[in-house]
Amino acid sequence: MKIYDRPGFPNPSRIRIVLSEKGFDDKVEFISVDLIGAEHKQAPFLAINPSGKIPVLELDDGTLISESTAITEYLDHLDGHPVLTGKTPREKALIHMMQNRAEAELMGAIDGYFHYATPGLGPAMQPYVAPEWAGRKEWGERQRAKAIRGMTYFDGVLKSQPFVAGDAFSMADITVFASLNFAEAAGILIPGECKSLITWREKISNLPSVKNRTGQDFLQEDLKRFGL
Amino acid sequence: MKIYDRPGFPNPSRIRIVLSEKGFDDKVEFISVDLIGAEHKQAPFLAINPSGKIPVLELDDGTLISESTAITEYLDHLDGHPVLTGKTPREKALIHMMQNRAEAELMGAIDGYFHYATPGLGPAMQPYVAPEWAGRKEWGERQRAKAIRGMTYFDGVLKSQPFVAGDAFSMADITVFASLNFAEAAGILIPGECKSLITWREKISNLPSVKNRTGQDFLQEDLKRFGL
Ligand SMILES: N[C@@H](CCC(=O)N[C@@H](CS)C(=O)NCC(=O)O)C(=O)O
Ligand SMILES: N[C@@H](CCC(=O)N[C@@H](CS)C(=O)NCC(=O)O)C(=O)O
Repeated sequence: MKIYDRPGFPNPSRIRIVLSEKGFDDKVEFISVDLIGAEHKQAPFLAINPSGKIPVLELDDGTLISESTAITEYLDHLDGHPVLTGKTPREKALIHMMQNRAEAELMGAIDGYFHYATPGLGPAMQPYVAPEWAGRKEWGERQRAKAIRGMTYFDGVLKSQPFVAGDAFSMADITVFASLNFAEAAGILIPGECKSLITWREKISNLPSVKNRTGQDFLQEDLKRFGL
Repeated sequence: MKIYDRPGFPNPSRIRIVLSEKGFDDKVEFISVDLIGAEHKQAPFLAINPSGKIPVLELDDGTLISESTAITEYLDHLDGHPVLTGKTPREKALIHMMQNRAEAELMGAIDGYFHYATPGLGPAMQPYVAPEWAGRKEWGERQRAKAIRGMTYFDGVLKSQPFVAGDAFSMADITVFASLNFAEAAGILIPGECKSLITWREKISNLPSVKNRTGQDFLQEDLKRFGL
């Protein structure tokens, strides 16, 4: 299998954690995509993923799977022993619910702030993701406020249960964790009063599948290299 | 089981099709939520779904499940015979991929147009979903353009395969179908050259689980009642 990604970027980092959690690190070859040069918005990459985003998983038969949840469903079921997406109908439902909330309230909001209210991925990328327009900056700032509300929401959830979707680590934890790393890189800090979220983040960052996996430093370096 | 929804609304209509496809119509009691009066943005409903959206499924043990994909995962696996979310890892992956694309490129874009560039759900709702700001109308119009591009994308997909995620009807078809109904109600028409998409839509609308299920007329009436 091949994975098109870039180390340190938020959505690709979700899949690196999944691979590690499943013990599949040796099963994949990584192909780096130049996000900052907008390689993913040109025809060759759009043939791989028409949405122009990473990560993308390519199976040995050539099947192309994009969208982090879809890739996670694939990898989690590959050995017949799902550990990240739930076993019972109720587990599956709660994991998908929290996963969607994490994407809508955190990942998507942070992404909006990053691209609309900051220099984002720089001048080559900006026209694709956040074209110039009167409301741009305000839209970005609203997304920042939404992300902060999202953090407060997840803090509340984690006051009464150890993981985002209940008693076990799941795909939903991975999405929240990757979102918080992205938030940090984009300059959105977790409010100090979100103590449960901060403690949970520390706990997750020490899981064997997560430790040294997210390439956060790589992202920071990438952004600095382009003066961002 | 109980379902909080409102007939004719796009996301609730997805779940009505799922229920019918699974033969579960008699297993649920529907509770109507007054979306136009912003009932779903007040404390009692926010305790049911903090995202303030319908549909929500309430299990007999009180568990609350929101997000249409999560509800679909639950219902599809309840009898141990999933027919809408895939059986093999590859099927699950392709269905989730196309489902996400349908939400991002169609449902979400149409929703953006509806709330930002039209009177949306009227004056009680507007401040919650699309507050006044300089870029509002332009944002909405861009979402309309995105939805049209999305229609062209799905038309291309349906040129070479009978259903959105391949050879079988799935959750992804339901999302595209519900999105097109929403688009029509919001005044976004499918471009005439999208012949494959138009033919597919006609075929889906005649499936037994879909026919007379979507309550499209109800939505139109609801909107007219409020002068929208
Ligand atoms: N919904 C997608 C989101 C993927 C995504 O937004 N990836 C980012 C990198 S973290 C990307 O490709 N951004 C570049 C862009 O949007 O142009 C998923 O779940 O994988
Ligand atoms: N991601 C949610 C979206 C649900 C949604 O947006 N529902 C609409 C009705 S079709 C709603 O509640 N809109 C009111 C609002 O956003 O305030 C899902 O998959 O169910």
